[in-house]
Amino acid sequence: MKQINVGIIGFGTVGAGTFEVLTTNREIITNRVGARVVVRKIADLDIETDRGIPEKPGAEIMTTDAMDVISDPEIHVVVELMGGLEKAREFILKAMEQGKHVVTANKALLAEFGREIYQAAERCGVSLAFEASVGGGIPIIGALKTGLSGNRIQTCMGILNGTSNYILTQMTRENLPFESAVADAVALGFAEDPPTLDVDGTDAAHKLAIMISIAFGSAIDFDQVFREGIVGITPDDIRFAQEFGYHIKLLAIAKDLGEQLEARVHPVMIPKNHILANVHDAFNAIFLEGDFVGPTLYYGLGAGRKPTGSAVVSDIISLARDMVMEKRGMMPPLAHVRPPEKAVSIQPMDELMTSYYFRVSALDTPGVLSTISGILAQNGISISSVIQKGRDQKGSVPIVMLTHEARESQVQRAIHLIDNLDVVTDKTVVIRVEGND
Amino acid sequence: MKQINVGIIGFGTVGAGTFEVLTTNREIITNRVGARVVVRKIADLDIETDRGIPEKPGAEIMTTDAMDVISDPEIHVVVELMGGLEKAREFILKAMEQGKHVVTANKALLAEFGREIYQAAERCGVSLAFEASVGGGIPIIGALKTGLSGNRIQTCMGILNGTSNYILTQMTRENLPFESAVADAVALGFAEDPPTLDVDGTDAAHKLAIMISIAFGSAIDFDQVFREGIVGITPDDIRFAQEFGYHIKLLAIAKDLGEQLEARVHPVMIPKNHILANVHDAFNAIFLEGDFVGPTLYYGLGAGRKPTGSAVVSDIISLARDMVMEKRGMMPPLAHVRPPEKAVSIQPMDELMTSYYFRVSALDTPGVLSTISGILAQNGISISSVIQKGRDQKGSVPIVMLTHEARESQVQRAIHLIDNLDVVTDKTVVIRVEGND
Repeated sequence: MKQINVGIIGFGTVGAGTFEVLTTNREIITNRVGARVVVRKIADLDIETDRGIPEKPGAEIMTTDAMDVISDPEIHVVVELMGGLEKAREFILKAMEQGKHVVTANKALLAEFGREIYQAAERCGVSLAFEASVGGGIPIIGALKTGLSGNRIQTCMGILNGTSNYILTQMTRENLPFESAVADAVALGFAEDPPTLDVDGTDAAHKLAIMISIAFGSAIDFDQVFREGIVGITPDDIRFAQEFGYHIKLLAIAKDLGEQLEARVHPVMIPKNHILANVHDAFNAIFLEGDFVGPTLYYGLGAGRKPTGSAVVSDIISLARDMVMEKRGMMPPLAHVRPPEKAVSIQPMDELMTSYYFRVSALDTPGVLSTISGILAQNGISISSVIQKGRDQKGSVPIVMLTHEARESQVQRAIHLIDNLDVVTDKTVVIRVEGND
Repeated sequence: MKQINVGIIGFGTVGAGTFEVLTTNREIITNRVGARVVVRKIADLDIETDRGIPEKPGAEIMTTDAMDVISDPEIHVVVELMGGLEKAREFILKAMEQGKHVVTANKALLAEFGREIYQAAERCGVSLAFEASVGGGIPIIGALKTGLSGNRIQTCMGILNGTSNYILTQMTRENLPFESAVADAVALGFAEDPPTLDVDGTDAAHKLAIMISIAFGSAIDFDQVFREGIVGITPDDIRFAQEFGYHIKLLAIAKDLGEQLEARVHPVMIPKNHILANVHDAFNAIFLEGDFVGPTLYYGLGAGRKPTGSAVVSDIISLARDMVMEKRGMMPPLAHVRPPEKAVSIQPMDELMTSYYFRVSALDTPGVLSTISGILAQNGISISSVIQKGRDQKGSVPIVMLTHEARESQVQRAIHLIDNLDVVTDKTVVIRVEGND
């Protein structure tokens, strides 16, 4: 029986999970591959600490030097699970130059340096697989590359960051302010301290950029993905959203507009009966709509040792199967043999057309609502509903509004004017609305 | 540029959908495959009727003889979309003997004659792909074969029949009796007239058998899958379910018990907050739980020309990619190169342990509840809650109960005794409960 040798660089949470899947399910995997899949070397700066997995790797396969993995002529697949940008990039490129297939879970690296890495894989004639980079254990990369391969992808929209979803869920259920929900998430191990890249939308934007690259066949410039985090969301906004029939979620959204593509990550209000509105706690879910398949959803745990290990191992198994089947050519990383003729162009955020929620804090004086709605009207923004609540202690009241579809640039201009009114006491909260069809 | 030639047998709904996807998205598919995918011949007994698709196949590629497709030496992939058992089986086997790769959407054939067909594919060294056989456009076969390939699958549970889900949704929303909901579904084109295989659980059981075969690596005997339909469900049961906090769904369930496997299709009561309880209308959803990935869900349209066409084309694209990459070996149809050592053994239904809902119709006389609960207690069934409603016009009342976990054989014995009581006026409705963890 053939043997496929794997080398792992980075033995943290995901590295340990990958080793755990490969050893615990050794027999199942051998049956499914038709070859033994063996971890031949593991590189990590820390080769002492116990990772708390049932079967420990033997000391003889541990090394502190990643080059021991990359240069080992017996290793077929190099699995990069160290994270970070510069070193990971260097190791992946070196491994490819040595003719190794590469598996990675490194979403930041692929989002920011993807173009170089995808091209290197093609140049070196090796496979690059990254199922674990988006949605943890959810096989979403497979759905995009294979399952929906006959479709023009029209919408790709998801809850891609479990930490911020957990925080929003806690804020909703327990009526907590943002800071307390973050503290809870950190205490329970759902979030790093501080969870900056999770709550500011960067992590979700990384994952969105990877999905867009596959759906449209070419890497995009990550900087063009609009990002706004959940820091400004208050329990008040969550409560008002519920009065209007919505939940608040941090959503990553890509839509094919024909000539251009929307690509944005920000908090949204989404109707309670939308399937994404019912994804709670640390779960992730991705909604993909294709011109033939229609709406589809993929749901599961987006992080953690075991789910992410499951995704990494599914990639290792696919590469191992290709080797057993003696596949000669290699599918390019983005699953497009020919890049599409027209490069993907991202719509400037100013041009976005959508509906909005505003919460204006204003003094409860006569004529306030008329002044505000006048400014909105002058900027071509029409209101679909308003809630005006009673006076609070400081004398200022929330005026809460939903709009019909409006243009982002005009909304920003109108909000700027409103926030400069003497009667307005605080910065207006703006949340975009999604899923209202 | 290479060209991959496809022949289609059966040009009904799904055949037309497949042709529509291949022609509408010709350029996208060419980019993704790196070769042109061309439909070279289409066989159907009716080559006259307009299928209502934008681009029509030229008359020169239409034939009434399936053997024209199977014997054409230029055709690489034969796509069987005629349905039915005997003829389809014959054509698929002949195509494989001619060295053609085969794509099929024929769930009945795979569930009932799968073993023979899977073996034939391996013997002939060809690929057999059947993404469209389960869950319509949802890429669930891909998730089982590839996405979760590192996992031991513990639970595979789904709403696999859109027609019965549509009927149950209408019964719930509109408070309709079964017969009226069926009539609506037929009138709207969601159901055949009569929709026997949909509502009696056979169609869902076919799909469950296919998923089990992949998850556990060997074909199962279809007759061992327990089937019970939704014909006996009344609006009363739906209302009582809601009072207890449940929805009623037709669910296909497989669970790995270690030595044996549960495999059953029947109506269930499922908690309202379970993600499967929120799958409505004609949508399908499959819940897969693996030992590492944890709970995952896949959701989309389970039938129809376009979604099913999407799934068939994803298979064609995968085979075409393999040809472009000059893959030499072939992955066996069930994605197990070595079948597992132990064949799958299905647990007899009598041994099932689960919770139950009973609706007993009884005369409203003193002592009835005590008699019934006595019989249950004697059979080791303990009650978790009871609703007893006021007298109806005919003098009989519903006594509605939920039980703790009990054994199916004891439940059947107790219900038999209860139904033979003089005070019991109608057959007791029994619905199993699922998803209560």
